[in-house]
Amino acid sequence: MPTVRFLPSQAAGTVSAGLTLLEAARHLGVEIPAACGGKGLCGKCRIRVLEGEVAPARGHECPLSPAELASGWRLACLARVHDDLVVEVPAAPARTVILTEFGRTDVPLETNLRAARVSMPAPSLDDQAADLERLGRALGLHAGPNAAVPVLRELPHVLRRHEWEVQAVLLGDELLHVEAPDGGPLLGLAVDLGTTTVAADLVNLGTGEDLATASCANPQAVHGDDVISRIEHAAQSPEALAELQGLAAEAVNDVAARAAEAAGAAPERIFKVVVAGNTTMQHLFLGLSPQGIGRTPFVAVQRRGASLPAYALGLRTAPHARLYVMPSISGYVGGDVVAGLLAHEVHRSAHTILYIDIGTNGEIALRANGQTYACSTAAGPAFEGARISCGMRAASGAILHVASDTDDLRIETVDREPARGMCGTGLLDAAATFLDLGLLDDTGRLLADSELPAAMPVAVRARMDTGDSGPGVVLAAAPGGPRVVLTQADLRELQLAKGAVAAGVGVLLEHAGCTEADIDTVLLAGAFGSYLRPQSAQRVGLIPPEARLDRVAFVGNAALAGARAALLNVSRRAAAEALAQEVRYVELSGRADFQARFMETMHFPA
Amino acid sequence: MPTVRFLPSQAAGTVSAGLTLLEAARHLGVEIPAACGGKGLCGKCRIRVLEGEVAPARGHECPLSPAELASGWRLACLARVHDDLVVEVPAAPARTVILTEFGRTDVPLETNLRAARVSMPAPSLDDQAADLERLGRALGLHAGPNAAVPVLRELPHVLRRHEWEVQAVLLGDELLHVEAPDGGPLLGLAVDLGTTTVAADLVNLGTGEDLATASCANPQAVHGDDVISRIEHAAQSPEALAELQGLAAEAVNDVAARAAEAAGAAPERIFKVVVAGNTTMQHLFLGLSPQGIGRTPFVAVQRRGASLPAYALGLRTAPHARLYVMPSISGYVGGDVVAGLLAHEVHRSAHTILYIDIGTNGEIALRANGQTYACSTAAGPAFEGARISCGMRAASGAILHVASDTDDLRIETVDREPARGMCGTGLLDAAATFLDLGLLDDTGRLLADSELPAAMPVAVRARMDTGDSGPGVVLAAAPGGPRVVLTQADLRELQLAKGAVAAGVGVLLEHAGCTEADIDTVLLAGAFGSYLRPQSAQRVGLIPPEARLDRVAFVGNAALAGARAALLNVSRRAAAEALAQEVRYVELSGRADFQARFMETMHFPA
Repeated sequence: MPTVRFLPSQAAGTVSAGLTLLEAARHLGVEIPAACGGKGLCGKCRIRVLEGEVAPARGHECPLSPAELASGWRLACLARVHDDLVVEVPAAPARTVILTEFGRTDVPLETNLRAARVSMPAPSLDDQAADLERLGRALGLHAGPNAAVPVLRELPHVLRRHEWEVQAVLLGDELLHVEAPDGGPLLGLAVDLGTTTVAADLVNLGTGEDLATASCANPQAVHGDDVISRIEHAAQSPEALAELQGLAAEAVNDVAARAAEAAGAAPERIFKVVVAGNTTMQHLFLGLSPQGIGRTPFVAVQRRGASLPAYALGLRTAPHARLYVMPSISGYVGGDVVAGLLAHEVHRSAHTILYIDIGTNGEIALRANGQTYACSTAAGPAFEGARISCGMRAASGAILHVASDTDDLRIETVDREPARGMCGTGLLDAAATFLDLGLLDDTGRLLADSELPAAMPVAVRARMDTGDSGPGVVLAAAPGGPRVVLTQADLRELQLAKGAVAAGVGVLLEHAGCTEADIDTVLLAGAFGSYLRPQSAQRVGLIPPEARLDRVAFVGNAALAGARAALLNVSRRAAAEALAQEVRYVELSGRADFQARFMETMHFPA
Repeated sequence: MPTVRFLPSQAAGTVSAGLTLLEAARHLGVEIPAACGGKGLCGKCRIRVLEGEVAPARGHECPLSPAELASGWRLACLARVHDDLVVEVPAAPARTVILTEFGRTDVPLETNLRAARVSMPAPSLDDQAADLERLGRALGLHAGPNAAVPVLRELPHVLRRHEWEVQAVLLGDELLHVEAPDGGPLLGLAVDLGTTTVAADLVNLGTGEDLATASCANPQAVHGDDVISRIEHAAQSPEALAELQGLAAEAVNDVAARAAEAAGAAPERIFKVVVAGNTTMQHLFLGLSPQGIGRTPFVAVQRRGASLPAYALGLRTAPHARLYVMPSISGYVGGDVVAGLLAHEVHRSAHTILYIDIGTNGEIALRANGQTYACSTAAGPAFEGARISCGMRAASGAILHVASDTDDLRIETVDREPARGMCGTGLLDAAATFLDLGLLDDTGRLLADSELPAAMPVAVRARMDTGDSGPGVVLAAAPGGPRVVLTQADLRELQLAKGAVAAGVGVLLEHAGCTEADIDTVLLAGAFGSYLRPQSAQRVGLIPPEARLDRVAFVGNAALAGARAALLNVSRRAAAEALAQEVRYVELSGRADFQARFMETMHFPA
């Protein structure tokens, strides 16, 4: 009988050959989610085979990409055990409200990029057409394709080397590349160029198939965590700006190379790249000065989308690949928001939709009465775990959830590792739990021991800390492990952040002549991913108190989804330009009504 | 009384103050042509003041450019003597038939390039338009101009440095440049990129004014004089091709810098460049492999015109200047012929026009019955003085004309310097004179002394040479000077060259269903300039015997005139593309009828 060992729990044992991995896991007490009941449909039971062989089942082809299959990913409900195995179970997502219609949206493939395999007669004295005309004729193009000089420099050699049978890569009527007839598929890369993280989706532009995903830290972080530090660095000299441009390009090259490797392809097969980022990231990537964004009145150099050869920015994709950088709405509502709205077609909706993108800044858009409004609030990086004393990103050991049972707080961490710190999701959860328990009042003050309700469990009361850094709540203090304390100052950071977002929501609702009760759907994009409990977000007042929780959707990396939509579909891309023009931007800076609202919304709902 | 000395004759003397230089020249026995009779109209009496001061007369502004005036050029009929002067008289053009309507054609200015001086309000929280939008608004452009990334990189700095008042340079709706509000005029450069010589016209694209002309030798000549040698060099390696590309670009940079200097401007003010050359020169300039042109079936990489940023080829013009390279008709009928036809609007004529461009190759076009035909003949470089034993270019001391009087041959040289060799014009003249005198028979054979007519003057008879290099005619043998002998072999080269052209003309006439008698006009472009005697060209059979000599026009550098037309006028440029498509190219290589005609046309008319 084969032996199966599950990581990270190390649960192991022998199981009957032929069982599914889902059955084997249950047998050994390992929890693997399986929302569809083991039918191979929901994709929730994804696990990764680290050692031993598990042949992919037919059903695998649906929710897993070829690249994932090649990397050992399987669906536990379909994968059968015939060999000794070591299997990794990914950190289980906790209870979340995922509205699948807002997941990675199905975008119909509609691209102006195509690969055409053609053969043509060799030239003769009776047929002296120039090389480009000859190719154009074979392609059935009357006026022949256009070709930039670098492409023309290759053309005669490629045609003759392959004896007048080639694959031509065309973008509309522009010839991008000529190659051997079996040159391979054309790939596209959608990139979310975040201030902190750069993420990319690699797709096959011939079929629309998703091939691989990759991400890396934004290497510009050596010049500061937030956009203001980057802007200040760029302002130092043209060389500093060029350095930041180069770092952004390297990050895109990095995710391109990783995604290509995962898909078993070469980055040189990428012929189209779409990049979405906040206005500053896009400026830095293009090498445009972001100085105007950095100070009042916060103006960009250009808001329109930019289309240019990828090599012009230093990308190592196909030599003549085209790059498109998303349009922006304002200096602080960037291409990432445009992409997010595009991904979920917010701008076309007849409903009232509130879109909140939580990152270093909080960008908010409101679709109401056929019009889209947007603003940006300086939410600060609290939701990303920054400026929180025990803050960290949602990596292994980060506190993800805080709840209470009858005796004490219950703490859950990423990968179920010993707690090392606290991520944004945990911060919201903790604050919501503290409010419910009465550890925290609606002004945001942690109560003193003497003020706590009499019924407060002893274990919770024991967590109250009055250390050197002021009042706090000890969330973890395992022997040998770090002490994780959420301080009064941390909770103030949270108040500032959620207050800014809530005030921005209020201003937009007023602009649109709506109330919270009119909101049909709330889309939460960005940092939180799908781990956030909407109840907690609402309890602290980040989500409007009157919004119906069954209409809250966590859409994850909507910027990336929108970049992918623009990559796969030229109509969507055109819609992005129109969308960026149409959105009514509301500048909050210097508005008395925003300041007044902010003072109110900094409080927690009672 | 002031003293005037004329060069190169060294005639000198004192003249009354206030005389014109034309009157002074007549007084001192110096011949200066003055077709209009001294009215300052024809421009034929151009001279150059080397020492002393002559203020420009008002009338000077008409036929002389500011650059020429700055270099001391004056019209002798208007310039008055008040100072001691040294004056250079250019080599007198001999009797020529210049049809002025075929000179530098008046092209109406119609350009999509414009400079606009605009000021705009500074941004504020109430007006957060991005820099490019703000500029677009000031320019009255609804959708704002497009701008490439390098231009966008400059934009915010220039707008702020000049406090929101700038000059914008636009090509259509594309922003090419932003600069100080007093940035200066926009210049354009038309270039004839010849195998031997590169020539350029610098114009003001705001006014259409011609500013200066410059030329230089094509530095590619280090890799051979003719296109075949260059093609062979380019084929050696990508580096060799890149070297030829770089040399061509340097030649254009050279003429641009010289012309700009002559006009007192900077080459960085050149925003538009149009280049016309033969197909091989254009390929090399663009860095495209000319190998396909070098061997049968003689195919180009691209025939269409190329539009690209000038910096992409290494031009040191304005940073974002646009470059246009003329379309070609075939591998051996290039952009220079397209430009020539364009300059004289041959392709639109209702008349029957024969256009012959004499250079290393002889390109021929025929306009007849509403259709344009073209072919190319391997005329060889005889007309440029190459492959002729005593051949040289039409420089100082080159024999330009050979005639006979009652006693002897009369020889005329460039600059009236002692004879050093023979240029193409002199070669044709000599052959025509030898035929008329009976030194040469219609098969092209120089007669032996015993065969000469009895009436042959003794001095002419004495010139007949039977040296080691076979029979020949001694044209010059001054003591201490070189012996200039036109040999039987030289005359055979001439026969091959003129025979090829005449055979090509015959094939085109047949294609068009015409005869020589139908020809309304002959346009002769290229090497000969305006020095050639049409009688001589017709006597040897280069021009069809039935063509009327008063309808022969020497149009000089028609390629340059056409490049200038495309530079000044976008409709003409568009016409060039249509023209290149419409012309019916007739391939002579391998045609039996061409070979047969060639055998006939090698003979001289009886």
